[in-house]
Amino acid sequence: MTDPLIPGATIGILGGGQLGRMLAVAAARLGFRSHIFEPGANPPAADTAHALTTASYEDTAALTRFAQSVDVVTYEFENIPTAALDVIEAIVPIHPGREALRISQDRLTEKTFLQELGLNVAPFADIPDRAALDAALVRIGTPAILKTRRFGYDGKGQSRLQGPEDAERALRDMAGAPAILEGFVDFSHEVSVIAARNAAGDVACFDPGENVHRDGILHTTTVPATLSAGQRMDAVLLAAKILNALDYIGVMGVELFVTSGGLIVNEIAPRVHNSGHWTQNGCTVDQFEQHIRAVTGWPLGDGTRRTDVVMENLIGDDMDRVPALAREADTAIHLYGKAEVKPGRKMGHVNRVKR
Amino acid sequence: MTDPLIPGATIGILGGGQLGRMLAVAAARLGFRSHIFEPGANPPAADTAHALTTASYEDTAALTRFAQSVDVVTYEFENIPTAALDVIEAIVPIHPGREALRISQDRLTEKTFLQELGLNVAPFADIPDRAALDAALVRIGTPAILKTRRFGYDGKGQSRLQGPEDAERALRDMAGAPAILEGFVDFSHEVSVIAARNAAGDVACFDPGENVHRDGILHTTTVPATLSAGQRMDAVLLAAKILNALDYIGVMGVELFVTSGGLIVNEIAPRVHNSGHWTQNGCTVDQFEQHIRAVTGWPLGDGTRRTDVVMENLIGDDMDRVPALAREADTAIHLYGKAEVKPGRKMGHVNRVKR
Repeated sequence: MTDPLIPGATIGILGGGQLGRMLAVAAARLGFRSHIFEPGANPPAADTAHALTTASYEDTAALTRFAQSVDVVTYEFENIPTAALDVIEAIVPIHPGREALRISQDRLTEKTFLQELGLNVAPFADIPDRAALDAALVRIGTPAILKTRRFGYDGKGQSRLQGPEDAERALRDMAGAPAILEGFVDFSHEVSVIAARNAAGDVACFDPGENVHRDGILHTTTVPATLSAGQRMDAVLLAAKILNALDYIGVMGVELFVTSGGLIVNEIAPRVHNSGHWTQNGCTVDQFEQHIRAVTGWPLGDGTRRTDVVMENLIGDDMDRVPALAREADTAIHLYGKAEVKPGRKMGHVNRVKR
Repeated sequence: MTDPLIPGATIGILGGGQLGRMLAVAAARLGFRSHIFEPGANPPAADTAHALTTASYEDTAALTRFAQSVDVVTYEFENIPTAALDVIEAIVPIHPGREALRISQDRLTEKTFLQELGLNVAPFADIPDRAALDAALVRIGTPAILKTRRFGYDGKGQSRLQGPEDAERALRDMAGAPAILEGFVDFSHEVSVIAARNAAGDVACFDPGENVHRDGILHTTTVPATLSAGQRMDAVLLAAKILNALDYIGVMGVELFVTSGGLIVNEIAPRVHNSGHWTQNGCTVDQFEQHIRAVTGWPLGDGTRRTDVVMENLIGDDMDRVPALAREADTAIHLYGKAEVKPGRKMGHVNRVKR
């Protein structure tokens, strides 16, 4: 374990989207500078960061200079090319670590890891080919969902099967990508736990939030979630189990299905998470600062929930609602500074707090 | 009245200190970009801003380019040279406006303005020379305090007189600068009102805070302040009276002495104010966002106080306390990213909230 970084140190952030932007703000609040690495032009995170490198993840020279200019590297998305990580890690630590990335980059690896930890997951099967799919449909049944093993998010790379007759179409939807079949889970609702672990091994979880999706994209997160005291404790304990098993450093989002038979882990994300945005207006220390504290070797902060909050994402044309939202009482607006409004694009969010 | 600025617009901020830094964060939260203008190197505000111009306030070409690159200009300190304001205002609006700056830049003008508004101020006299000082000492009595009319802050440019025999020393302390003499006020404590007014003429005040100074520098602000319901209403009404009289746009800090005979206005600052930092952890919309909303033509936000807060400034070596503060529950740390620790220098602050 190394010494905590002191204010004035620089945090390298891979990815310049809204998560990187809000991480950079939290870093500044603790006196750190942020350096953003992002291939795209005009990244939202550059507006709140000390430095920006615009380069591709294949640009070894740029990655090297970036790594040399910072004291620690973290990231806002999990699909970072392995070769880029190798370049960086030879120079400076990366938190959360490689193992968390390896596991969360591949749905099959992730499901297997969670199952081996003794946690409940949806029935699943590796689908390298049509024969495997046919066999899995017999074992798991329908409805079921075929998902690419890698690079899926916000409902992309997924295809539903109502019956065996959908097998060919679903496989075609994968466009040749390695896939897994997941059985449907009969759940009442989805919750997520935003959990943090630091280098000292301390774990802290924010109060679980209840998530509602629209068109495969998170629509709202509500705290407190509908959970019994026992379910709430289970949720926090299983999240801690995952973080400890990975010797994890940083914030992780753990999505859970609530069923009559207990909690089922849907997926994990080794980073700050959209369903944790409510913490900005519900806690003294939010998920972004908690992540920065963890990756810089600081003690975790006080993430006690202080009020009820409903977080609502602003997607695409929801931006037209901003003037009306600006007049609402009990409402905090968080916009991402994205130049272009596109359908399905996350443009911002609002946190509505209870008076 | 002009249309509200829409997200993506750029706010020019004169001054790159901690107030500019926290204004830039608030601007980003609403989707705006910030462009900092600051003569000094490595300004704290640059770490959270989209753009930085490093130039002096005498550099007309740099001021012109700066003004042309932004949609509105605001500032974090009131002593901006008039000629610089002339250059900028020919290109882009400045909020708060020139009249507020003119009045607050000069203690004599400020006191006269407040008195003419019908508000109570400490007895004062213009001191152009020794004869004026002698006459004023007879009228106002001692103890009294001689202050430079311009450029004083954090206790600088002030000299106390215990009796007429101190006149010569005090006048020498002014080093030839125009001065005013102020009579001492027998007050129980100091409070401040952070008030906001937007282009539509809406006024909103944060709950008054109670200020304690050490060595002439703000040490703590506590909300709620010790005030009767009547005093609290008086404080808010007189702040509103000041903002309305100036057709003010933005946030203003109004410092008040609480006496048995009522509230006495100590001074006004046409900007976000150190005694309003508690709002970052006490309100859904803080003073920085309220200022950005006002200067961009947005509706004012919900500044309702949601919890009790004690704000404590971290001055100079208080930075050594950060590791311990980071372990405190109910405590939010806000550091300014200043490269060098100096005695008396404001390095950050903490907000302690009530559980």
